[in-house]
Amino acid sequence: MSSRYKAEIVSVGTELLRGEITDTNASYLAAELPFLGIELHRVVTVADDHEQLCQVLRQAMARSDLIITGGGLGPTEDDLTRDCIADVLGEKLSVDPELERQLRTMFTRMGREMPEHNIRQAVLIPSAVSLPNPRGTAPGWWVDKDEKTIVALPGPPRELMPMWRNEVTPRLQARFPGESILSRIIKTFTVAEARVSELVQPFFKAANLEIGIYSKPDGIHIRFIAHGDDAEQTLDTTEAQLEELFSPYVWGKDDDTLEEIVCNWLTNRGLTLATMEDGTGGLLAGSITEASKSSGCFRGGLIASSSETKLAWGVPEDLIKQHGAISAEVAEAMAAAARERLSADIGLSTTGIAGLDSPEGKPPGLAFVGISDDHGTRTWQQNYPPSRADARSRGAVAALFRLRERLIELGLTTS
Amino acid sequence: MSSRYKAEIVSVGTELLRGEITDTNASYLAAELPFLGIELHRVVTVADDHEQLCQVLRQAMARSDLIITGGGLGPTEDDLTRDCIADVLGEKLSVDPELERQLRTMFTRMGREMPEHNIRQAVLIPSAVSLPNPRGTAPGWWVDKDEKTIVALPGPPRELMPMWRNEVTPRLQARFPGESILSRIIKTFTVAEARVSELVQPFFKAANLEIGIYSKPDGIHIRFIAHGDDAEQTLDTTEAQLEELFSPYVWGKDDDTLEEIVCNWLTNRGLTLATMEDGTGGLLAGSITEASKSSGCFRGGLIASSSETKLAWGVPEDLIKQHGAISAEVAEAMAAAARERLSADIGLSTTGIAGLDSPEGKPPGLAFVGISDDHGTRTWQQNYPPSRADARSRGAVAALFRLRERLIELGLTTS
Repeated sequence: MSSRYKAEIVSVGTELLRGEITDTNASYLAAELPFLGIELHRVVTVADDHEQLCQVLRQAMARSDLIITGGGLGPTEDDLTRDCIADVLGEKLSVDPELERQLRTMFTRMGREMPEHNIRQAVLIPSAVSLPNPRGTAPGWWVDKDEKTIVALPGPPRELMPMWRNEVTPRLQARFPGESILSRIIKTFTVAEARVSELVQPFFKAANLEIGIYSKPDGIHIRFIAHGDDAEQTLDTTEAQLEELFSPYVWGKDDDTLEEIVCNWLTNRGLTLATMEDGTGGLLAGSITEASKSSGCFRGGLIASSSETKLAWGVPEDLIKQHGAISAEVAEAMAAAARERLSADIGLSTTGIAGLDSPEGKPPGLAFVGISDDHGTRTWQQNYPPSRADARSRGAVAALFRLRERLIELGLTTS
Repeated sequence: MSSRYKAEIVSVGTELLRGEITDTNASYLAAELPFLGIELHRVVTVADDHEQLCQVLRQAMARSDLIITGGGLGPTEDDLTRDCIADVLGEKLSVDPELERQLRTMFTRMGREMPEHNIRQAVLIPSAVSLPNPRGTAPGWWVDKDEKTIVALPGPPRELMPMWRNEVTPRLQARFPGESILSRIIKTFTVAEARVSELVQPFFKAANLEIGIYSKPDGIHIRFIAHGDDAEQTLDTTEAQLEELFSPYVWGKDDDTLEEIVCNWLTNRGLTLATMEDGTGGLLAGSITEASKSSGCFRGGLIASSSETKLAWGVPEDLIKQHGAISAEVAEAMAAAARERLSADIGLSTTGIAGLDSPEGKPPGLAFVGISDDHGTRTWQQNYPPSRADARSRGAVAALFRLRERLIELGLTTS
């Protein structure tokens, strides 16, 4: 085990210090490093400034085994990561003929001549090997020197992330052979993060096990990583324990999404689905269309943000008058209307208040999910903290979560 | 001007180093500091570890005038920010009776007894004054010592952000009185970030002016901040220059959103809108329902992700057969069908390919917007880089952007 192998991320870019972009590379890499048995102990963001970047790199070399830099590999004079690594290591930059050839080929393929300053992207130092970047003009660097490793990657996440997966991860795995590291994720909904955190505490003490709790739009994810020869066994045991602990809340694991789960079940049973939404404003239909099998089961969605539209689509006027648009009764009628209007087997609806308004004198955050199927209708009520910005997406997730529950109840699951 | 007043952000939390959450506080604060004429030169993320946090604070004190910490103010033994500030400054922590009273009152109001370890949140050091936190149990600290200022804020963004605005910003403004700092944002669409960056370069050289370029879901935003007595004048001049430079791409400024603009115009003219979407899967209707006046103009939205649904809603079958669902012809028919089906004055449609698929032999990233109104129909074609994760939301923005253009063309704007 390499748990004393310490990593540090250095994010380079004045634009980060102006708040122009959020540093998603750092959180991406931070979530990846535990899989390699590497401990991340520092993230530093520094400007495109020669003196400051050199200082940060020197400090990082002094306290960390692996330094991962993101950014500063562009072609301009403000792109200083290569220069500073060379300075800190006391090595000289020189143009690598093979990198230059590749770079010129890349520009030719784009139908453009290579601007001369781009030659800055074709340099190396003696201790560095280049890491190919199929999505951009900046190759990365892998540098081994004095028992320290520096990995320099370009800043754009769409370049950095595949380079991390395809180039850096295999090299780090080769460095720690025989180390078996496995992970699993359990996904929950309708349980609070604080409660998950509390219940998961005992697991933090287990040797060879790392636990992470991630608050995602589709609920709280619990990730657990096991090291060593009995990693598989540890994962199985932990999964069983967590599933028991969180049983009514667990809806999936690893790469599962709620929309994939319900669309697979529906498609396998030859059933179709239609939606009518208010309060989630299209996000429910949008989620469903993300599922790979959605075209096999999704008849379509209606967004009925006004009472007139609800009436036009078959929600009875007296129900709205009597109970208000945000009510179990109207959610029920919306689900039935969607089912009928779009000739689907199942109608799914949402109605709720996003934001801080209190229309109809109802509390902000109040929402309903309705389901209409051959066996009747069902509704669920929920109250979101009104301040939460993601009340709409939570509403869409809630609808899919309830649909999953309903399909289980009706015995319509397939595995 | 206080441009040599240097700030550093210290984000505290092992969960950040595990990638469980992305550090949005840092980018929030980074975007705020220029308004105060303060330069952010470093962001450091450190674990909940006494030795490491003290080390980071010592280094920050040595090189920065203002240190803003986020996190580590909770009630547990892992919450070490208070302890480390005290250690680094050589001061002693003691319970502040007034803070204790407020904390106990807060728990009483929540109907709970205060757990004894929460007393950790009621401590101060002699150099610290507390900053009220109406949304949580952790008050912040404002510490002045040895010409350095430390501001300690809790980690949850919904606590940190209002405390920054309401407590910290006024204190920092009072420290630099007479400093007039104003800002404006110009919002563009359909122009590439690299092009904006290039055209904006000359402005970076202007004294008393700071420029930031932000890539947002609704396009590239250009923010400019002016300092000093002639700040207003500088902003006006800069705005006029930028508007000329980017004229066909500029759609709004400051707090404008495309959905607010088009819904305001439509509502003021008594016109109604209906949508039919494919490829944007509900995001277009969702954006429209975000507008405060949407209920006055939005008749509803149809999500037609399958050809059957398009047919059911009145798109002619032969058009789909002849041109494919992703075509200008079908976008046109969808707009017309939405308009007719929902008795609206204007129909707006999207059809396109999200993701890397190539259905119908068409290139991934191809998309169309259609508009149908009293004067006929119009369509626009666009090609997104297929890899982009936000192709769907870009499609919805594109539809609103084209609707805005169309309303201008028809003379239907109101100001």
